[in-house]
Amino acid sequence: MRLALAQLDPTVGDLAGNTSRVRAAIAAARAAGAQVVAFPELMISGYPPEDLVLKDHFLHDCAEAVASLTVAADGILAVVGVPLDQGEGRISNAAAVLSGGHVAAVYHKLLLPNYAVFDEDRYFHPGSRVLVLQCPEARIGLNICEDIWYPCGPTEEAALLGRADLILNISMSPYHAGKGREREEMLCRRARDAGAYVVYVNGVGGQDELIFDGHSVVFGPEGDLLVRGPQFQEALLLVDVDPLAARDVRGKGTSPHSWPVEVVEVDPAAPAAGSPRVAAGAVPSPAATTEPVIPEAETAHIVPLLSPEAEVYRALMLGVRDYVEKNDFRHVVLGLSGGIDSALTACVAVDALGCGRVNAVTMPSRYSSAGTRFDAEITAANLGIELLELSIESVFAAYLDTLTPAFAGRSPDAAEENLQARIRGNLLMALSNKFGWLVLTTGNKSEMAVGYATLYGDMAGGFAVIKDVPKTLVYRLADYRNGLQPRPGPIPASTIERPPSAELRPDQTDQDSLPPYDLLDRIIQAYVVEDQSVQQIVAAGIPRVEVERVVTMIDRNEYKRRQAAPGIRITPKAFGKDRRLPITNRYRG
Amino acid sequence: MRLALAQLDPTVGDLAGNTSRVRAAIAAARAAGAQVVAFPELMISGYPPEDLVLKDHFLHDCAEAVASLTVAADGILAVVGVPLDQGEGRISNAAAVLSGGHVAAVYHKLLLPNYAVFDEDRYFHPGSRVLVLQCPEARIGLNICEDIWYPCGPTEEAALLGRADLILNISMSPYHAGKGREREEMLCRRARDAGAYVVYVNGVGGQDELIFDGHSVVFGPEGDLLVRGPQFQEALLLVDVDPLAARDVRGKGTSPHSWPVEVVEVDPAAPAAGSPRVAAGAVPSPAATTEPVIPEAETAHIVPLLSPEAEVYRALMLGVRDYVEKNDFRHVVLGLSGGIDSALTACVAVDALGCGRVNAVTMPSRYSSAGTRFDAEITAANLGIELLELSIESVFAAYLDTLTPAFAGRSPDAAEENLQARIRGNLLMALSNKFGWLVLTTGNKSEMAVGYATLYGDMAGGFAVIKDVPKTLVYRLADYRNGLQPRPGPIPASTIERPPSAELRPDQTDQDSLPPYDLLDRIIQAYVVEDQSVQQIVAAGIPRVEVERVVTMIDRNEYKRRQAAPGIRITPKAFGKDRRLPITNRYRG
Repeated sequence: MRLALAQLDPTVGDLAGNTSRVRAAIAAARAAGAQVVAFPELMISGYPPEDLVLKDHFLHDCAEAVASLTVAADGILAVVGVPLDQGEGRISNAAAVLSGGHVAAVYHKLLLPNYAVFDEDRYFHPGSRVLVLQCPEARIGLNICEDIWYPCGPTEEAALLGRADLILNISMSPYHAGKGREREEMLCRRARDAGAYVVYVNGVGGQDELIFDGHSVVFGPEGDLLVRGPQFQEALLLVDVDPLAARDVRGKGTSPHSWPVEVVEVDPAAPAAGSPRVAAGAVPSPAATTEPVIPEAETAHIVPLLSPEAEVYRALMLGVRDYVEKNDFRHVVLGLSGGIDSALTACVAVDALGCGRVNAVTMPSRYSSAGTRFDAEITAANLGIELLELSIESVFAAYLDTLTPAFAGRSPDAAEENLQARIRGNLLMALSNKFGWLVLTTGNKSEMAVGYATLYGDMAGGFAVIKDVPKTLVYRLADYRNGLQPRPGPIPASTIERPPSAELRPDQTDQDSLPPYDLLDRIIQAYVVEDQSVQQIVAAGIPRVEVERVVTMIDRNEYKRRQAAPGIRITPKAFGKDRRLPITNRYRG
Repeated sequence: MRLALAQLDPTVGDLAGNTSRVRAAIAAARAAGAQVVAFPELMISGYPPEDLVLKDHFLHDCAEAVASLTVAADGILAVVGVPLDQGEGRISNAAAVLSGGHVAAVYHKLLLPNYAVFDEDRYFHPGSRVLVLQCPEARIGLNICEDIWYPCGPTEEAALLGRADLILNISMSPYHAGKGREREEMLCRRARDAGAYVVYVNGVGGQDELIFDGHSVVFGPEGDLLVRGPQFQEALLLVDVDPLAARDVRGKGTSPHSWPVEVVEVDPAAPAAGSPRVAAGAVPSPAATTEPVIPEAETAHIVPLLSPEAEVYRALMLGVRDYVEKNDFRHVVLGLSGGIDSALTACVAVDALGCGRVNAVTMPSRYSSAGTRFDAEITAANLGIELLELSIESVFAAYLDTLTPAFAGRSPDAAEENLQARIRGNLLMALSNKFGWLVLTTGNKSEMAVGYATLYGDMAGGFAVIKDVPKTLVYRLADYRNGLQPRPGPIPASTIERPPSAELRPDQTDQDSLPPYDLLDRIIQAYVVEDQSVQQIVAAGIPRVEVERVVTMIDRNEYKRRQAAPGIRITPKAFGKDRRLPITNRYRG
């Protein structure tokens, strides 16, 4: 039995575009001899569609899109994720099974995640039954994303009670560093426990703060990895399996769950009788005249896993590329300070978009050292990007002059430092407004955590590339990127070796006001990612004075983060929709 | 039977402060002869505690706070809302019933809202039984907020199956304009359907974007309004009821729901044997040396409802006061342009905080008219607030000069306009940084909707007072405020009558780029608040060209709103946590 895993990158809300790519991939899969082709969770709407699902007309348009695809299921069975309105306000996260020119069955996701970045209880009603598709060559248990993460859940039930030979799971599984490995371990166990093939089709792409890493896999009924798709890129993977041969391998047993199992007979080979092969889509595609671009069908194999640094770097590249492309930007701009954060951000941007689509700006002040100014030039030259120099001195002087009466008798402090950062933010935004460029911000997670950043200053911009990358990982990624090419890499050694500084007053370094970054990042990991208490972190051996200082900074800066640009999530808990703390909050602990 | 309704204003995360106020209110209620005193939903933690509930140590501290209160339940029964960890990751939104010096019963909220501004499925497991407290003088059915909103739900079940004479509901019900009336209608029906007294205790206060309006009520078993507490202020309301007299009024019937009903016998008069009257709190209060301030106990009556404009105005005042106080600001600052939005914002700030805690800044440019500059001075003088004048001209000139090489050959456009707004934002932020003042932003909902505001410019600030007030309502509120005192009111007639303008280029008015505000506000109401499609709005009689133009502007400006300051919600759907749309979103409909 030949399966096609359509590891595609949908765009949220682009029903016409997503649908036309599904149609093209169905045709390509059939041409490659596949009997079944499966698409990611909510492929038609994109994931997550958030409150779009609350619009009746959006759901109506999604249903129309699926209807327009049925004729494409002509001699091939297609599984397509879509939000479906079942009436009476019951919306489901569904998988439509298209076969023989019509919708042969619909599966409704049973387990809805409502934690971390997920809000599926807000939108969806859970399904109420396990679905098994009885095909001539296999019994396919179909489920969606979260459904497969629980032992003794829908997967085992489909296999043990519904006698499925193969579990097909369609997913949009949000990425964090190392998630792919966790997922493989889980799917391996699930295949073994179910004694069935597990075919896991995961989408790919960036959607605001979320990354989806692709990395579709197939496990055999003994938990053996048969196929691993590429990470962070689209693919149309062909996989041949013989599920009936697995029958005797499967253990017998009963599932503790008690959803009813529905078995629907389908024949993937059924033609779409009476319909033209090429459908006149009910949803008109704006790009109907141009052929949709889909990856070429290829025989799947086991693609080696990326190294930890390569994985995160590729996630950042994908995040930048998709945010830029899906929001129709042509060009990005960023401030290049000579420091490591902006240098790394520039590398990611250039690798994602090409050097012709990236502009850098250096904005020196009286406090900028010759070293950082020179490093900014070197980095830009190494990356082949244009570097604009705009001094902030005259504007800074004008501000100080304007504020003289108001500030009379006060000594310089953070107000003057922030002004410099805000002038830089304004200059970048002026270029953005004038030329339509997207401003990339360059702050890292360690700074975002403790508020070591200026609101409306270096925080000004549309997309925050390394917002979820702790400073210690910034260094590792810089080394990784430099190592991709013959020495020297794009980031100068002096940028990497110089003690980090905001250069907003004479001889300032980050370590004047922050603990060493390795210590800081350990506290952030414990407090933010793991929700540990001060007490617990101190018990783990970090001095109480440091822990309390950092935790207080993290808590106090919630208001700043609330106004930060969205950025790419690469850890299990970012400063985004997965961390929802009140601004007004007196709890300290 | 004498009840005390403790309509208090908790602070999120201030466990010690909230607990000490509960302790004081229990004592005051007992002193006033009450047998039962009830506090709002999640009184101990404040509402909503959001991800604080995911911290084990936070839940532990909440449990300790409740334990520390038990000894206060000495000859009085107290019902206190608190998040409770029941073990195995099951957290409930609970009401602890304290009587005779111990926790006599615990109710767990049955119906958890997970729509609009609510995320309770993220945090809580629902309870599994209806609770009825058997007291000598009444059978009290206890439930929490959402529980009472559904017909044939926990309320009817407690009354009809559990033979409760009185339903006690503790709430933190987020306000929007007119919500109080909706709530009264619902509670009236519920009392009548249940044939029982309904005692509804609602908290009060501002928490980030949410307002809680107090407005506690008591309905008799025939749906007659017996008591209405004040809106938008704290109160400790004493109510005498005779629930046993209602017994014969109540209809008999069965509830379609099937939660088991648990009846717990309690005696409000039971002493806290063996415990000292004044507890040594397990949670130390930082203000333990000073007496907590609680409202004086007063006999409740039917307080008249505020007018629609007065209601919103009071909501805004409360929102400002609580955001400022709970975040420990002493002083606020805002830009006063001479326009109506900033004038109204200044009135709200002064009415909330007093004129001594508000500073205004006028920041004229070459495009500022003499009229608006004069109006800013008049408004400040009328309100008795200090007005600082900072011209933006020299800074603007310095920016233009700095950008000359980059902008060569381009004509002035939004880039130069936004620069002016950003200079003003920076000046306000400089004052904020230097003096620790909170910057209030002054943009209204109509502008926020269509993006008629400058990111990091007039959008810069910590709290957005009229962010959810449509422009048409801004005018009504200005008239209302002016009418509160002998003519002329604080806002000059010329400010109200002048066509609105951002004054960022010569002879600019808002209507150059926007439809008339009455039309704009109708489209916003339909598209944003009611989730109507373009098609539906056009069908309602608004020209398609205007609808499409406005809807496109609303969609395109999602990225700006994502970086906006939090602000006060006064409509059923604000641009806050109740509207979660993707930034990357190609859906148009």
